[in-house]
Amino acid sequence: MGASSLPSDWLEAVKWDERGLVPVIAQERGSGKILMVAWMNREALRLTRETGHAVYWSRSRQRLWHKGEESGHQQVVYALRLDCDADVILLEVEQMGGIACHTGRHNCFFRELQGGEWVVVDPVLKDPNAIYGKGSGG
Amino acid sequence: MGASSLPSDWLEAVKWDERGLVPVIAQERGSGKILMVAWMNREALRLTRETGHAVYWSRSRQRLWHKGEESGHQQVVYALRLDCDADVILLEVEQMGGIACHTGRHNCFFRELQGGEWVVVDPVLKDPNAIYGKGSGG
Repeated sequence: MGASSLPSDWLEAVKWDERGLVPVIAQERGSGKILMVAWMNREALRLTRETGHAVYWSRSRQRLWHKGEESGHQQVVYALRLDCDADVILLEVEQMGGIACHTGRHNCFFRELQGGEWVVVDPVLKDPNAIYGKGSGG
Repeated sequence: MGASSLPSDWLEAVKWDERGLVPVIAQERGSGKILMVAWMNREALRLTRETGHAVYWSRSRQRLWHKGEESGHQQVVYALRLDCDADVILLEVEQMGGIACHTGRHNCFFRELQGGEWVVVDPVLKDPNAIYGKGSGG
């Protein structure tokens, strides 16, 4: 429980789950808004620190995912934090393009519970087809 | 992928994992600080909405955990949000007592990566022994 009892190797101090992953929250510097939650493995976390840009592990594609590699919407990392149980990481980031979500919204938490329904409360800022090169833009 | 394709039952719209759980981020109203990450099952989420106070599922104790039941540090819930993949929930809360972490700190993300080490950067506001009734206080 003590904060001083972490292993000296900062990568091994993280409590990796049975898949070797840890959930990561990306929070926007300045606004404090939560942009997204994704996953990292050891390599993604190491690369995030080395490059200064968020690198995640894509569970669906089963490969490293340099955030913004397709969309250009990279995340510049200003700080990394670890929680008391060492099983969640918090990134303080600047979001390039102002769009973190694959739906073209500022962030992924665009649905709010209102009267027993999840209601979309945030606008699409850019057509995903344009972001990901299948349309006319991006 | 469309936001309109969620099931009409708001509880079933959440993508519960193989254990029937979903990770939940508690963010402080006003400051925007991330207080903690915990887990909910259907019952915890239903009770959170009904009571207006955060109710989690304790994985270690395998039971419902009314946040603050021991410490008095309840979380009053102002909003619930769901992410694009419907597999993470974000709570906007007011933190009673100003302490969310079991270590007696304001929040659980009190370690920051500095020079290859996780350094404790936030103070203990109250002795955990006092919070949890094993000491003189509480």
